[in-house]
Amino acid sequence: MAKTYIFGHKNPDTDAISSAIIMSDFEAQTGNNEAQAFRLGEVGPETQYALDYFKVEAPELLNDNLADQNVILVDHNEFQQSADTIADATIQHVIDHHRIANFETAAPLYYRAEPVGCTATILYKMYQERGFEIKPEIAGLMISAIISDSLLFKSPTCTEEDVAAAEALKSIANIDLESYGLEMLKAGASTVDKSAEELLSLDAKSFNMGNHVTRIGQVNTVDIDEVFDRHGELETAMLAANNEGNYDLFVLLVTDIINSDSKILVIGDDKDKVGEAFNVTLENGTAFLPGVVSRKKQVVPQITDVLS
Amino acid sequence: MAKTYIFGHKNPDTDAISSAIIMSDFEAQTGNNEAQAFRLGEVGPETQYALDYFKVEAPELLNDNLADQNVILVDHNEFQQSADTIADATIQHVIDHHRIANFETAAPLYYRAEPVGCTATILYKMYQERGFEIKPEIAGLMISAIISDSLLFKSPTCTEEDVAAAEALKSIANIDLESYGLEMLKAGASTVDKSAEELLSLDAKSFNMGNHVTRIGQVNTVDIDEVFDRHGELETAMLAANNEGNYDLFVLLVTDIINSDSKILVIGDDKDKVGEAFNVTLENGTAFLPGVVSRKKQVVPQITDVLS
Repeated sequence: MAKTYIFGHKNPDTDAISSAIIMSDFEAQTGNNEAQAFRLGEVGPETQYALDYFKVEAPELLNDNLADQNVILVDHNEFQQSADTIADATIQHVIDHHRIANFETAAPLYYRAEPVGCTATILYKMYQERGFEIKPEIAGLMISAIISDSLLFKSPTCTEEDVAAAEALKSIANIDLESYGLEMLKAGASTVDKSAEELLSLDAKSFNMGNHVTRIGQVNTVDIDEVFDRHGELETAMLAANNEGNYDLFVLLVTDIINSDSKILVIGDDKDKVGEAFNVTLENGTAFLPGVVSRKKQVVPQITDVLS
Repeated sequence: MAKTYIFGHKNPDTDAISSAIIMSDFEAQTGNNEAQAFRLGEVGPETQYALDYFKVEAPELLNDNLADQNVILVDHNEFQQSADTIADATIQHVIDHHRIANFETAAPLYYRAEPVGCTATILYKMYQERGFEIKPEIAGLMISAIISDSLLFKSPTCTEEDVAAAEALKSIANIDLESYGLEMLKAGASTVDKSAEELLSLDAKSFNMGNHVTRIGQVNTVDIDEVFDRHGELETAMLAANNEGNYDLFVLLVTDIINSDSKILVIGDDKDKVGEAFNVTLENGTAFLPGVVSRKKQVVPQITDVLS
């Protein structure tokens, strides 16, 4: 049987890494023993906390050319967020919870998307439907992904199905959701030990919006001011990133995971339009956005609207 | 609750019409009573036979502008095969068995694709998973769609899941698959009442192959000779179509749905290469191709190979 490469998006977050590992376990249970999880970037501290807690090794970094290789994508579909050689791969299956765009195949495939808060929630349902065994460490990674994507169930992207999955899994993983979740989020929320460049690339994605390529990075923190103390340093790094990556616009979303608010910093063309998107006027390129925590639901559609 | 528009592709076949009706029944069972099936074109005689047999009314022709309307697509995803205003609609759900291309949404959605022979087979699985009731007429439409897409299970696109679905459904629909299926296919296979131009455009698609644009039409029949009695008339119409459509090559695939063979008629540049593709020598532009029934699997790749 030919190898199957399984991976989440570039700049992997906890859902991207966990869902790749979970899906390779799922594939093994279907009889596909040649399925292997990979990652498209470094493992962040939040994800490392989860992997360490449940004693799971991080997936290998993907270096192979995927031309004519069998591939399963988790937690993404847009080619610009995927492996560089994805267009030449044979995509057999996609499991995702995002919009569909810049995605194309030559042949029919399995595709399962649901508008839930986390890819791991869909994977949980797939295990249930097939009656597959959920081992404690798989349950732990599913919970970690759900808590990460939903910011402990507080994000507007969080659905009843995400909560129900985490509740059903907590006894298998043998953890308390609240205390484990907060420790995990805090592990990923330290910003002082990171360079400005590292903060920008922690969890950044590119989006085609009208004629603009917009880069949107998100930093989780327990102290927004701690990040904005480095305003100038961040602006310089964002300008450099725009030049290097040919982005027209860079939006940095700094999210307070305790109070569930964000402050944005914007650099690039039409940056005032980003203010418009949120009915605010940017001051010094920044604005406070109360209640905003979700890039997918509360940022991307709003900026897409004003730029299209 | 806002209305939900459900429809299959343009030039609807039995799967496109049936799956729209089936999905509106499925939605009603989920509690969505505002879901309505529509069609994007005329109902063909094969589909009409199925609708009459199971006493189901044809869906309404879609005339509404879909801007900001809720939409469910069945049996297609590529926008050029969909409603003209699809790009402005809110696509909530797709159920399909084709490749994914030229498809994009602004927001997350439900998308379920599986590489089976028929959309109705996926719908059957969805009913099973949810424990929904399958009424006799819904079972009948599911079977009709499966038989239509698989040419009574003989097409190489047919999977074990398609066969299993039809077998499981036949007692609910209270029919014999073989005899019902043959009558239904025959109802759609009458060629004497159609002009040569109508036969050519019944089910024709264009393909870029090397430097050639190749047009490939398919006509289902129970009597290949009945079609080839009009050889001269067809050649004249194919020449005119090549001139008008700037096709370099026109291949008409006349498929005997009883014996699962085809005879081709070829007009245009390099027509002898089409013979090469099937290891035969064209006589008078024609060749008999035993066992060939699927354009997608048995014709397009072979001609692409010799022209590229």
